[in-house]
Amino acid sequence: MINIAVLGYGTVGSGVVEVIEKNHDSINIRAGQEINIKYVLDLRDFPGDPVEKILVHDYNVILNDPEVKIVVEVMGGINPAYQFTKDALLAGKSVCTSNKELVAKHGAELLEIAKEHNTNFLFEASVGGGIPIIRPINQSLTADKITEIIGILNGTTNYILSKMTDEGEDFDTVLRQAQQKGYAERNPEADVEGHDACRKIAILTSLAYGRQVDYEDIYTEGISKITNADIEYAKETDTVIKLLGMTKVKDDVIYSMVAPFMLDKEHPLMNVNGVFNGIFIHGNVLGDTMFYGRGAGKLPTASAVVADVVDAVKHQGTNIMTIWEKDKITLGDIKDFECRFFVRVKDTNSKTHIEDVFGEVTYINSDKVLGEVAFLTASMKQGDFDKKIRSFDLIQRIRTTL
Amino acid sequence: MINIAVLGYGTVGSGVVEVIEKNHDSINIRAGQEINIKYVLDLRDFPGDPVEKILVHDYNVILNDPEVKIVVEVMGGINPAYQFTKDALLAGKSVCTSNKELVAKHGAELLEIAKEHNTNFLFEASVGGGIPIIRPINQSLTADKITEIIGILNGTTNYILSKMTDEGEDFDTVLRQAQQKGYAERNPEADVEGHDACRKIAILTSLAYGRQVDYEDIYTEGISKITNADIEYAKETDTVIKLLGMTKVKDDVIYSMVAPFMLDKEHPLMNVNGVFNGIFIHGNVLGDTMFYGRGAGKLPTASAVVADVVDAVKHQGTNIMTIWEKDKITLGDIKDFECRFFVRVKDTNSKTHIEDVFGEVTYINSDKVLGEVAFLTASMKQGDFDKKIRSFDLIQRIRTTL
Repeated sequence: MINIAVLGYGTVGSGVVEVIEKNHDSINIRAGQEINIKYVLDLRDFPGDPVEKILVHDYNVILNDPEVKIVVEVMGGINPAYQFTKDALLAGKSVCTSNKELVAKHGAELLEIAKEHNTNFLFEASVGGGIPIIRPINQSLTADKITEIIGILNGTTNYILSKMTDEGEDFDTVLRQAQQKGYAERNPEADVEGHDACRKIAILTSLAYGRQVDYEDIYTEGISKITNADIEYAKETDTVIKLLGMTKVKDDVIYSMVAPFMLDKEHPLMNVNGVFNGIFIHGNVLGDTMFYGRGAGKLPTASAVVADVVDAVKHQGTNIMTIWEKDKITLGDIKDFECRFFVRVKDTNSKTHIEDVFGEVTYINSDKVLGEVAFLTASMKQGDFDKKIRSFDLIQRIRTTL
Repeated sequence: MINIAVLGYGTVGSGVVEVIEKNHDSINIRAGQEINIKYVLDLRDFPGDPVEKILVHDYNVILNDPEVKIVVEVMGGINPAYQFTKDALLAGKSVCTSNKELVAKHGAELLEIAKEHNTNFLFEASVGGGIPIIRPINQSLTADKITEIIGILNGTTNYILSKMTDEGEDFDTVLRQAQQKGYAERNPEADVEGHDACRKIAILTSLAYGRQVDYEDIYTEGISKITNADIEYAKETDTVIKLLGMTKVKDDVIYSMVAPFMLDKEHPLMNVNGVFNGIFIHGNVLGDTMFYGRGAGKLPTASAVVADVVDAVKHQGTNIMTIWEKDKITLGDIKDFECRFFVRVKDTNSKTHIEDVFGEVTYINSDKVLGEVAFLTASMKQGDFDKKIRSFDLIQRIRTTL
């Protein structure tokens, strides 16, 4: 029998307790021994709840109990999660977490401490919820040089964009519906402005290239400015608008960004709709691969956390090699990132002027949008686009994968 | 430095040599040490080829060299691959293989020998080519009870069906084209009749449930009887015809089969086209997940083999726990497998008779097919369907996921 402690009895924490209970037999077979939840840490009390008997309010009870070999950190946020995690690793306990802020910010350091203490810091649930993606990058794609990672990494924004596309509702209406259904937070900024996706692409990029990518360095744009007119134009161009976390290597420079893109219909991510997430990876020998599943939610996230617990049990006393050095990657300047842009300008801008400035473009017509001119540029650098667009009355511009 | 030997210098074997050469630096970082190919075994000579200097014809040279720690078996077939693999494991060497026949037939035994000798038998490339799927099932989906595995596991048949769907060509024409392009073997039976997919779903099912599934027990139907008329009807029903390897658990009974299905357009596998493979898995807590990528080809397959080599290097002297007992699973009788059937009968069969026998059905009309009646049944057991259909002039019947 191996004893574990769960820090935080919120959505994910109660999911972890539920999954370990529900699939008790099969999990213990996979782990090779019985997993026993000895403590649950939470500031709150839960009278009548089965965890009442094992509930503690003081982390030191867990930290100082040598019987606890694995700590599940599912509190979220940096403080006190960071200190708790660090202390557990220093005490030789393994830590499994779903906390993307913690991993994005302190992943390299915590992995180093885990290695020094011959224990493990595991974080499969921090990106893509239940989708196996961290372990595949670390252990399965090791023969490849990864040249491209494109992820639909945030279920809330994907749900909003899917609803806008399918039902023609506007952003604000769909956001309100999403909040009512519990798919969006009351304060939706972290999702809607791309901060959540930014932390996740930072984690994936750090792992893919083995060195720290600071999420503050990743250019991030959200979806709050996407309108129904944009959606109509997307339909005309056989694309869908998706919020993508994107990392690409060009001429040995790593570019990373989060932004809404018009995604071409041939792309494997094209059909990742609703609250689902998908992560597309291109390897130089493997070619294209894609991982799809539920990117959030109590049980899918708990499934990934518990899979980490099983792995931690199997690797007691052995550090699972994970390459993520503290030494920081200097990302390429977003001004040098190349793509085709979709552009809407007021119809006071003549086509002659458009073609004078942008050369050959592809005009897009929509019966449903009037008083403007819309077109697709050739592939160009962001910096060049920004200069060229200055002489126009710009309504909107969206990057494309075309 | 760690020495390895490659058995077989065919498509995959030369791919393995190429990948280790091409991504030398990044692979060695991931492995934690330099990987050196000390021998390549082949019956043939390759004058002028760089491997000429390390080519051997006698397996005993490799087996008896204590410096060789890892053997890559990419010869295919059962003999002599089985004996070579067994001898290597008994000698304490790890074996990495892409050989699905070997794994499906002897996986349980070879894993047991590997465990006894504290070494590893790895076979990521045996299913889904470059797609990480074996390691995710073993190590990532450990918190779940898997209730469903549906795979597009054979690129040749998927290419043929995709071409028939997109271009309206008939089976024989597309098969010939596929043979010319090297996507199909001269003797296409193993692919076209579903035997290849059968071995792959047998491997996935054995791993998912931890016990041996004999592929001979899996009901297998190929695609050679699929016609353009079927494709037309699929379009009318908003489905696509795919050859699926399918394992489902119902009332604690495991059913497994390979057969063409009409796949509904909401299914995540719907857009897995051409030579690509996709594997959909439903876990009882994770929900739906899907893995997509190149299911065959020299470099994608080699990518998976080399990833296994990296894992074998990292786990020298430690057996990676893989649960696949020899004790055989008794699969459910295919007669009890339930689904909706798509049926085509001659128009000498009246609709009254159809409804008398099948109850309420959904008729499907196609302008392009005359002289027959086509319909979808309600969900029913295969055994019941077989009885009911006896009194009809049956043209075709295809299972559906509807």
